[in-house]
Amino acid sequence: MTKTIHPIDVILHKRDGLALTDEEIRSFIRAIVRRTPARQLVTDAQIAAFLMGVFFQGLNSRELSVLTEAMRFSGEVAYTEILNTFVIDKHSTGGVGDKTSLLIAPIIAAAGVAHPTPEGIPGIVVPMISGRSLGHTGGTLDKLETIPGFDTQLTLARMLDVLKQCGAALIGQTPTIVPADRILYALRDHTGTVESPFLITASIMSKKLAESLNALVLDVKVGCGAFMPSYEKSKFLAELMVQTGEAAGTRTVALLTGMDEPLGRFSGNWIEVWECVDIMRGVRHPMSADLIELSLTLSGWMLHLAGHSPSPQAGIDRADEILRSGDAYNAWLKIIQAQGGDTSVFEDPASHHTPGAKRILKAGETGFLASMDCKQAGWAVQRLGAGRAKPGDPVSANAGIESHVKLGAHIEEGQPLFTLFSDDEALLEEPEQMLRENLRIMEEPPTLPPLIREVIAADSTQPNRGRRGPDA
Amino acid sequence: MTKTIHPIDVILHKRDGLALTDEEIRSFIRAIVRRTPARQLVTDAQIAAFLMGVFFQGLNSRELSVLTEAMRFSGEVAYTEILNTFVIDKHSTGGVGDKTSLLIAPIIAAAGVAHPTPEGIPGIVVPMISGRSLGHTGGTLDKLETIPGFDTQLTLARMLDVLKQCGAALIGQTPTIVPADRILYALRDHTGTVESPFLITASIMSKKLAESLNALVLDVKVGCGAFMPSYEKSKFLAELMVQTGEAAGTRTVALLTGMDEPLGRFSGNWIEVWECVDIMRGVRHPMSADLIELSLTLSGWMLHLAGHSPSPQAGIDRADEILRSGDAYNAWLKIIQAQGGDTSVFEDPASHHTPGAKRILKAGETGFLASMDCKQAGWAVQRLGAGRAKPGDPVSANAGIESHVKLGAHIEEGQPLFTLFSDDEALLEEPEQMLRENLRIMEEPPTLPPLIREVIAADSTQPNRGRRGPDA
Repeated sequence: MTKTIHPIDVILHKRDGLALTDEEIRSFIRAIVRRTPARQLVTDAQIAAFLMGVFFQGLNSRELSVLTEAMRFSGEVAYTEILNTFVIDKHSTGGVGDKTSLLIAPIIAAAGVAHPTPEGIPGIVVPMISGRSLGHTGGTLDKLETIPGFDTQLTLARMLDVLKQCGAALIGQTPTIVPADRILYALRDHTGTVESPFLITASIMSKKLAESLNALVLDVKVGCGAFMPSYEKSKFLAELMVQTGEAAGTRTVALLTGMDEPLGRFSGNWIEVWECVDIMRGVRHPMSADLIELSLTLSGWMLHLAGHSPSPQAGIDRADEILRSGDAYNAWLKIIQAQGGDTSVFEDPASHHTPGAKRILKAGETGFLASMDCKQAGWAVQRLGAGRAKPGDPVSANAGIESHVKLGAHIEEGQPLFTLFSDDEALLEEPEQMLRENLRIMEEPPTLPPLIREVIAADSTQPNRGRRGPDA
Repeated sequence: MTKTIHPIDVILHKRDGLALTDEEIRSFIRAIVRRTPARQLVTDAQIAAFLMGVFFQGLNSRELSVLTEAMRFSGEVAYTEILNTFVIDKHSTGGVGDKTSLLIAPIIAAAGVAHPTPEGIPGIVVPMISGRSLGHTGGTLDKLETIPGFDTQLTLARMLDVLKQCGAALIGQTPTIVPADRILYALRDHTGTVESPFLITASIMSKKLAESLNALVLDVKVGCGAFMPSYEKSKFLAELMVQTGEAAGTRTVALLTGMDEPLGRFSGNWIEVWECVDIMRGVRHPMSADLIELSLTLSGWMLHLAGHSPSPQAGIDRADEILRSGDAYNAWLKIIQAQGGDTSVFEDPASHHTPGAKRILKAGETGFLASMDCKQAGWAVQRLGAGRAKPGDPVSANAGIESHVKLGAHIEEGQPLFTLFSDDEALLEEPEQMLRENLRIMEEPPTLPPLIREVIAADSTQPNRGRRGPDA
């Protein structure tokens, strides 16, 4: 017989800076999921007050773990254990032109299922559950859905079939997984409590851990195109996520990686698939170098964590080999077909790209490209039609931008910098302005940081004591 | 053409510690009052997030004034200006046995209306709008409603008639006055945002200022029976209320007064009316001394602020004279009759007191009564049946306690300390325990502070800069 815990007491304890007990957190999440219009075990107003309390008072390591676990088990979880393989996933905090999932899933699928080690190390599967475009960032699902026939809305049972058959699946959040997060996120979005690193961690990690992962590699973006407003805050978030993953028994590593300009050659939907198909078919466009570097690095860490490579660098070399050999492309075709996609469109991806309007943005002066506002570039992509103004809006398959230069390049006046694609001539004007106004061209070459800034693993973090994080 | 202000931006600005603009506050309150189930201009969750933001970030003097004014004008206001008199009220933050309103209203009515000064200083009216019992504190309305026929639910128009006729009215909050507070208070109550001194100030002052007052005297309780948990917090609240009143053009003075034991002889409903009738008819029971001191002091300040007495002390002397002369009792009878009450019950108030059960709590040892937990005494009164466990519960007219000793008294073992009254024998047990366990009897006489601790007037306060207050 446990004592009844009232939501108001949980709110008051958090408000007053006390550490919540495990049972307080669990009962609060239970009340959220079990409430009905007729049985208001906890009201929207109480959830909002709790979220704002957490925003101000934070959560210590224990509270954050218990919250994440309570959310993780609030709905269906993927019983990937039955596959008897090493289950690993990658998650990115979101960027512009960030399409690494499209390369990583086939690379790991090819490494794991097709090549079990002679030493008996189990194969690897990647249940890549992705999201849609949000704000200035793109969404893997929106990109994949430009492939004719491709179905991202699989049940968890169907996902297991695809994993068994292909070693990877590329699917969307199911309605049955982590219902607590859907409720909390909808409220956070309109109550000003999105930005809490604790709530972000619980949201991301509950969904990832519901995939029953053995390991997880996190790509936490830093720089002007990242969601988090400073390097320190991105790093704090990375540490929280690593600790929370490890506490749940999932090996977790976070890479802090640069998001100071659009990643790769294309930013949009179909055009990003095209770029990845090119890479997997051996075409390495110079504008794709950063995308390839990041995808191989993340894949390398995944292979290393799965026990298939003695070091991250050995994993990177292995991933590069898989990509160059064509094995990744074959795995890709298999996954796409398994989920109903028409792979004939990959034969000539450019012909599948038919934007109604395009415009080339040329350099207004000569010098070195020193910086750009990457968030504005993301919003330009969204305004061109590739992203959403609000959830449920349709997205254009063809809209987006092509980058012709990267930061640090020397450019001549009149040289093309970006090509903008849209379905409608009228939509080109504002995004062109947004891109043009946010470029900085200097006489001296800029000093640029490496793409991979820092690696956060369990042994490099300190337990958090429940404060708001850096500079709070 | 004003820019649309979205509730989410108001929440974010407050969350991030910015000072809100006047228009942000006004539009938020407008949205609260104008929303309907079909037109959710602002959701409960957003209001809760805003309230929690204010709890943590506070409000500066300007924000607090603008919020209070926006709430004040969210519904009907009393146009007491048309009476062409000085309009003054008293408000208490709530205590145990606190029945000063029942004495003050007739005292001021007798002083003002019956005796306009030869120098042409206008009369005074007291639109005493009171509340119901809440938690461990009693409610003036519940006490008054034990008078047969007495109607506290007057419209504002009817209140003006009674004021014109009697110089004072004793009524309840109307449904039309300050609707914003009703909505906010209901949400604060279940989201853990009741205790913010800023929100308490806006709630109290918006309702008082809606009476269109020329002046207001606040009785802010300190000590173990007060709502605020420390002297400093009570004082901070008093300062906020004085500043907010003055900013609205209402002369405002706050008295910090002791609530370390039940005030006066009786704590309950009818028995408190009885005590006041005794006093107004010239019977000064020794247990009523503190009640009389406080009522006269508050009345004295009111007479002084209204220009009828050259000093607060002169006002106190005047009030004492009015009380002793029987003028206050005559004014009382007139008010009660004007609002439909049967004044024949005052002829023999004790005969109207017919509790079903009573018990005498006697001293277990000899010594000086050093302290008691006054909040527990209030809860004992509530449990006896005089208060409410939740809004809407009925209250007993007869339940309550009679105090036979005051703090500092020397008591002998076996001497009666309290008599407990209830409608039901079974309800006596727990309250008796609560009273007994929270008394402290010592060998040495205690040092007791004066009843009136401190006076807070406009010139004794500093503008607040929007932090949470003392010790935050």
